[in-house]
Amino acid sequence: MSRTLHLNAFLMEAGHHEAAWRLPESDPYAATSVAHFQHLARVAERGKLDSLFLADSPVLWHGRIGRRPAATLEPTVLLTALAGVTNHIGLIATASTTYNEPYNLARRFGSLDHISGGRAGWNIVTTAGLDAARNFNLDDLPAHRQRYARAAEFVDVAIKLWDSWDDDAILADKESGAWGDDDRIHPAAHVGEFYRVAGALDVSRSPQGRPLLVQAGSSEDGKDFAARYAEAVFTAQQTLADAQAFYADLKARAAATGRDPGTIKILPGIVPAIGATEAEALALEEELDRLIRPEYAKRQLAETLRLSPDDLHLDRELPADLPDEDEIEGAKSRYTLIVTLARRERLTVRQLIGRLGGGRGHRTFAGTPEQVADAIEHWFNAGAADGFNIMPPVLPRGLEDFVDHVVPILQRRGLFRTEYTGRTLREHYGLARPAGQLVGAYR
Amino acid sequence: MSRTLHLNAFLMEAGHHEAAWRLPESDPYAATSVAHFQHLARVAERGKLDSLFLADSPVLWHGRIGRRPAATLEPTVLLTALAGVTNHIGLIATASTTYNEPYNLARRFGSLDHISGGRAGWNIVTTAGLDAARNFNLDDLPAHRQRYARAAEFVDVAIKLWDSWDDDAILADKESGAWGDDDRIHPAAHVGEFYRVAGALDVSRSPQGRPLLVQAGSSEDGKDFAARYAEAVFTAQQTLADAQAFYADLKARAAATGRDPGTIKILPGIVPAIGATEAEALALEEELDRLIRPEYAKRQLAETLRLSPDDLHLDRELPADLPDEDEIEGAKSRYTLIVTLARRERLTVRQLIGRLGGGRGHRTFAGTPEQVADAIEHWFNAGAADGFNIMPPVLPRGLEDFVDHVVPILQRRGLFRTEYTGRTLREHYGLARPAGQLVGAYR
Repeated sequence: MSRTLHLNAFLMEAGHHEAAWRLPESDPYAATSVAHFQHLARVAERGKLDSLFLADSPVLWHGRIGRRPAATLEPTVLLTALAGVTNHIGLIATASTTYNEPYNLARRFGSLDHISGGRAGWNIVTTAGLDAARNFNLDDLPAHRQRYARAAEFVDVAIKLWDSWDDDAILADKESGAWGDDDRIHPAAHVGEFYRVAGALDVSRSPQGRPLLVQAGSSEDGKDFAARYAEAVFTAQQTLADAQAFYADLKARAAATGRDPGTIKILPGIVPAIGATEAEALALEEELDRLIRPEYAKRQLAETLRLSPDDLHLDRELPADLPDEDEIEGAKSRYTLIVTLARRERLTVRQLIGRLGGGRGHRTFAGTPEQVADAIEHWFNAGAADGFNIMPPVLPRGLEDFVDHVVPILQRRGLFRTEYTGRTLREHYGLARPAGQLVGAYR
Repeated sequence: MSRTLHLNAFLMEAGHHEAAWRLPESDPYAATSVAHFQHLARVAERGKLDSLFLADSPVLWHGRIGRRPAATLEPTVLLTALAGVTNHIGLIATASTTYNEPYNLARRFGSLDHISGGRAGWNIVTTAGLDAARNFNLDDLPAHRQRYARAAEFVDVAIKLWDSWDDDAILADKESGAWGDDDRIHPAAHVGEFYRVAGALDVSRSPQGRPLLVQAGSSEDGKDFAARYAEAVFTAQQTLADAQAFYADLKARAAATGRDPGTIKILPGIVPAIGATEAEALALEEELDRLIRPEYAKRQLAETLRLSPDDLHLDRELPADLPDEDEIEGAKSRYTLIVTLARRERLTVRQLIGRLGGGRGHRTFAGTPEQVADAIEHWFNAGAADGFNIMPPVLPRGLEDFVDHVVPILQRRGLFRTEYTGRTLREHYGLARPAGQLVGAYR
């Protein structure tokens, strides 16, 4: 097989569908159950998936607890617990550049990379939302563009820190008593607009050199950021045409920065409701949608659209008069995706809530394992994806079904690995281990 | 048995003695080896110890890599890996109030408490040293007193966050679709001198309610802080008289704040070089001291004492003219401890380096298992300690020897548990689970 798929399992409490926890089979305490996540990690590894992934935002959304499981476990901590029960699968955690310090975050990802034997990845987010800002001494959300400028400098600093130990800095010379060579340590010595970080990291260079860098924002700022830094990109795309346009655009932007476009892997999300028959899959989807509490969901939709809940009527379309994306300082690409979806398909608010409740704007798909595999292969071969971000509506069942029934079809078609051939997350994605960037300058 | 000992295992790369890594048996890469720490955690649990502990400072000390293993793994991440291979032992991580945000840290400890089933503890430090400050956008170290004022407010905020979910906030009512009750969530709503944190934590209330709060600074500010917040205190005491004075002072300070002095457990450090015979124990200590590189150690000693290395001569005592503790903005209690030790015993710089290299100011002790048990019992019964912070000079051997040879003696004497009777870290230390502080106000 020449070009092969990359598959990531996006894990989330009892499933991605907001009402999944209400199914009889579901554990409503899954969100804080390490046993639940360890089971999912083992299943994903059984399916030879490239990686698993945890989203994150340091906030408890107001009013959300009434609607769906809202508790979380901090992702770098939870991933460490998953590292202990797996041997191959990559482990990607979301963390915010707006609400962390580069030194602290570089340490945690460096430590996770050591502990997991080179399987750490960082999904870089700038964190939208005023509620998050107000947990971190701020009265206002920093402007979108400023958040991205800060994110770029944050990643620059983190890379300096990950590269601050040469691979051969540790001598371990018991005879002479020299444990390490201070000349092979390169302090970050960073003085920038947002950060001043003087020293070297206190974590030695890890198996991957640095974690895999992942990004998921699809605004203009987000795409420019991804083109420069991201090695894998998660994206929400509803139609093949949109996905192809996004794919071509991002690869071109990466090339324009001088990068080989093959070093940036693009993975649209898919929320597959899988059934032994199409009717069974559709019935699952319908049952889940029926379990959504629309009044709660309407409130959150109104918040995202910067409206009052009274402006939305469940059985009417969205109001005609909505702000443009460039007036939005929050999650720009998510805003545009929702409005475009509603307008394109002329959805009522109730229908829109069903679509968003299923996959929060990601592509939902109900079908047999064969149909899911077809959908994946089609986009993969049509220049829309290097792989997929698998977002099962119900967990663990949806991931078990995907691994046991869809993965074997993809393997038979020669589209997906049958065994892990690499050891690190970078190797799974076919990406090189970075050389320390400072080596040339200092040695 | 009425009053029983508490024992904590302080884990550190190849051992607490700075030259331990040079012994033929030692792994010079132990500092970043999760397998090393997992072995130690299993040994400590085999010995029924209350807890294990990891120190931390977010800095790579300049010039230190040449002398001893200087790489680390971030403690909250490493402890999570240790949670996975143990079932009973408490897990205490150091984290800085000066260089973290309360929301982030409260999440990580809440998550660790969930993942470990109620075994998380936080050693609260303010982090001394200009080198650390310069990794976090600062040109100067914040003043000692200001660091402690900030630490107090930080802990106040963290407690509000840990208490922001009532124990019964999660309804998990599949029938009605109400996952949680928003009325049982209490936003921190904190507006203070150093922090403004509006929301509730996004981690639900954990098994212990909050992690065990631990503290280790022994300056005046540090003792006042401990009296107010700490449930366990690690301290460096060289003589019985000093330890008794510290013990009485801290219990009195705690009582003065209205606390039951029994709810603050005091654990002096001990660095036990254990041998089958006293001669064997002394030989180990001598071998380790012989392996110290004095010129490197002298440089670090000079830094701690705010001197030039040229002011120190290996075979002379410390200079007569040294600054007072109140002129020191760094680690005040450490400074005083070193100067007092050197003056009291009229040590040369070389001898002082040997003593500090063994235990960094903690009490070193070479002897048979019986002698180590005697030393522990003596202080415990003389009003100097509620237990001990065990700091083996060589790891894993020193911890194995302690668990296999000293613990059984303490058990036979009725001083130490033979089985875990509690489930959580708080239960091991005989401390109650805190009620949510906001319950009274809101319900």
